[in-house]
Amino acid sequence: MLLHPEEQMKIIQKGAESIVDEKELMIKLEKSFKEQRPLTIKLGLDPSAPDIHIGHAVVLRKIKQMQDLGHHAVILIGDFTGRIGDPTGKAKGRTALSDEQVKENAITYTDQIFRVLDQEKTTVRFNSEWLSNMTFEEVIRLAASTSVARILERDDFQKRYHNQTPIGLHEFFYPLMQAQDSVELKADIELGGTDQTFNILMGRTLQKHVGMEKQIAIFMPLLEGLDGVEKMSKSLGNYIGVQEPAEVMFKKVMEVPDQLIIKYFELTTDVHPDDVQNIKNRLDHGENPRDIKLELAGHITALYHGKEGMNAGKHYFETAFQQRDIPDVIPEILVDLEKDLLADVIPQLIEARFVKSKSELVRLIRQNGVSLNQQKITAEELDRVVMNDDVLKIGKKRFVKFVK
Amino acid sequence: MLLHPEEQMKIIQKGAESIVDEKELMIKLEKSFKEQRPLTIKLGLDPSAPDIHIGHAVVLRKIKQMQDLGHHAVILIGDFTGRIGDPTGKAKGRTALSDEQVKENAITYTDQIFRVLDQEKTTVRFNSEWLSNMTFEEVIRLAASTSVARILERDDFQKRYHNQTPIGLHEFFYPLMQAQDSVELKADIELGGTDQTFNILMGRTLQKHVGMEKQIAIFMPLLEGLDGVEKMSKSLGNYIGVQEPAEVMFKKVMEVPDQLIIKYFELTTDVHPDDVQNIKNRLDHGENPRDIKLELAGHITALYHGKEGMNAGKHYFETAFQQRDIPDVIPEILVDLEKDLLADVIPQLIEARFVKSKSELVRLIRQNGVSLNQQKITAEELDRVVMNDDVLKIGKKRFVKFVK
Repeated sequence: MLLHPEEQMKIIQKGAESIVDEKELMIKLEKSFKEQRPLTIKLGLDPSAPDIHIGHAVVLRKIKQMQDLGHHAVILIGDFTGRIGDPTGKAKGRTALSDEQVKENAITYTDQIFRVLDQEKTTVRFNSEWLSNMTFEEVIRLAASTSVARILERDDFQKRYHNQTPIGLHEFFYPLMQAQDSVELKADIELGGTDQTFNILMGRTLQKHVGMEKQIAIFMPLLEGLDGVEKMSKSLGNYIGVQEPAEVMFKKVMEVPDQLIIKYFELTTDVHPDDVQNIKNRLDHGENPRDIKLELAGHITALYHGKEGMNAGKHYFETAFQQRDIPDVIPEILVDLEKDLLADVIPQLIEARFVKSKSELVRLIRQNGVSLNQQKITAEELDRVVMNDDVLKIGKKRFVKFVK
Repeated sequence: MLLHPEEQMKIIQKGAESIVDEKELMIKLEKSFKEQRPLTIKLGLDPSAPDIHIGHAVVLRKIKQMQDLGHHAVILIGDFTGRIGDPTGKAKGRTALSDEQVKENAITYTDQIFRVLDQEKTTVRFNSEWLSNMTFEEVIRLAASTSVARILERDDFQKRYHNQTPIGLHEFFYPLMQAQDSVELKADIELGGTDQTFNILMGRTLQKHVGMEKQIAIFMPLLEGLDGVEKMSKSLGNYIGVQEPAEVMFKKVMEVPDQLIIKYFELTTDVHPDDVQNIKNRLDHGENPRDIKLELAGHITALYHGKEGMNAGKHYFETAFQQRDIPDVIPEILVDLEKDLLADVIPQLIEARFVKSKSELVRLIRQNGVSLNQQKITAEELDRVVMNDDVLKIGKKRFVKFVK
């Protein structure tokens, strides 16, 4: 049932930033193939995480691909630290959660995760199961597996130490807990973003320390958001949520900057690496990125909403946005932005043949046929100040855009 | 029953290197005096410690003086770390001890302690009682009470960090455990050598952190040994053991260098500070240090062997060593050290009027009347090589010493 190791390796490598280390992974894949025994793939998640977007889903997608190859996922909810909160009381939002809250968060969370993962091939575990039972003596033994200098190597700790920003001694335990989780789960592979490098490698160290085969670390790159610059994040508004409606999702993918098309194919779809290579070739040969982005939007929307959702998204996009998105069919009207009212610019609208007269415009408004930035307007709104990039629309095809 | 606080303070201050802080101690003494409630004085001891010498006993003596003032001592045996040993397996001699071994060591140890302390006013506790029951969550909370930078301030850690000598993360816990012991015992005062400064002050920090009144730290200086230079230690041979016979103890005190007489009065006897001041004045006025040292030897021997032991020690010293200790009554004989045999130097012995003839010497040896370095010798030992400072004795008063 498992694919040949070389074939698996090709799929696993797609989009990965780095794998530590590939040779060891190959040995694990070969052994697993020979024994037809699935590998255990670990992903640790913080139960306080918010709604999942397709940036978060990069690691989940990779795991899904490995599930499709026959392997088994363990989602490790880090509830132990959640229950403790921030013992210094300094970190806001790290107040201790009750058992019920943790369970509740976990349910909301796994609901979203199973929009990506194969529930049949996934186990959900909570690390309080073993961490809360550890004695001081066991903690001491755990601590003895590493040195202070080693932990201080972690980028953020090093910066804080040198800037004299206090590091609570308890913080040194978080990488160790994550490592202990790998020991308990006998993880073969752990996935994470590149910001998790230190913590995941600590798992290898600890597994070796206790005489276990070392897990393979697969680091996935961080995904830039729709602005093409910043890491995808809800607070920056440059995200595509996995729970967003098909129409919104499709339209947002169409906003992905051209230079990120291939990266999105690699990190946010399950398209086979050979096919991604073909798409790259097509782009390199001058094919319109817009057409390829339509395929990308189709793939992504289908992943979360099925074929039907994908079609709905595409139809909506083509009818409501496609024309507006072609700049040369939108006449631009120069106005005194943030001073002119809509009523003031009617002469220009007539001149641009957008409407024949003021009375025609008022009539169309009353017939509910005019919208400003996709919102129908009433006649009172003619007294509204015109802003940059405001788009006025009549019917389905007549557009005009105000600029300075 | 408790003395007036000012009077107590005078006795507590005697010989102390520093008290953190004196004002707070005064408040504790006043409150204790008013309520006639004894203070709890903590001393932590490592169960792997060897035979106790009077250098170790400096802190015990101070505690005994406070017991005489009415206070209560708690001897805290750090068995928790003893049971763990060194988890890295690197530190030799820090192999894990069994419960039985720990108990056995504790008995040997307390036997010696009660040669100094008042058993009626002493409680012995083991820190495994609370430390072994701590959960990981409690350990995390304990760790959160301090910062990495704060712990790295400790002299030895700082040196090791800068020299890139690995510090196991578990080692960071030892000061915290000691601090936790102070919390559990509700210690009012903790004593220690100046090498314990960091760990004892950590107790103050943690007590404050949990909303408790801070303990007072009393640091006692480290005592130089009989060589007057190095810290007293068994391995250097410059020590006076608390279990040594009265005769040995008395004689060893007489070897204390003159410049340390006052320090020894302050740190190793219970002589009242006012009387120590008198002794200092006598020395300053030119009194023979030897006579004062006889008093010192008397005080110290009496502390461990009572008045009878003190008299025995003094008598033995005066008869067996006093003459020998006066260099001008011991004729020195120049020999070719480590080459000449005892038999070879008989001509010199005759010349020095030590014996009249070889036959007289052999006769005296056969009568069991000749000793070399306090050991009776037989005629065969005339074939022994002569070493530097060998002292040959006939009867009780005839001495000769070999030198190069």
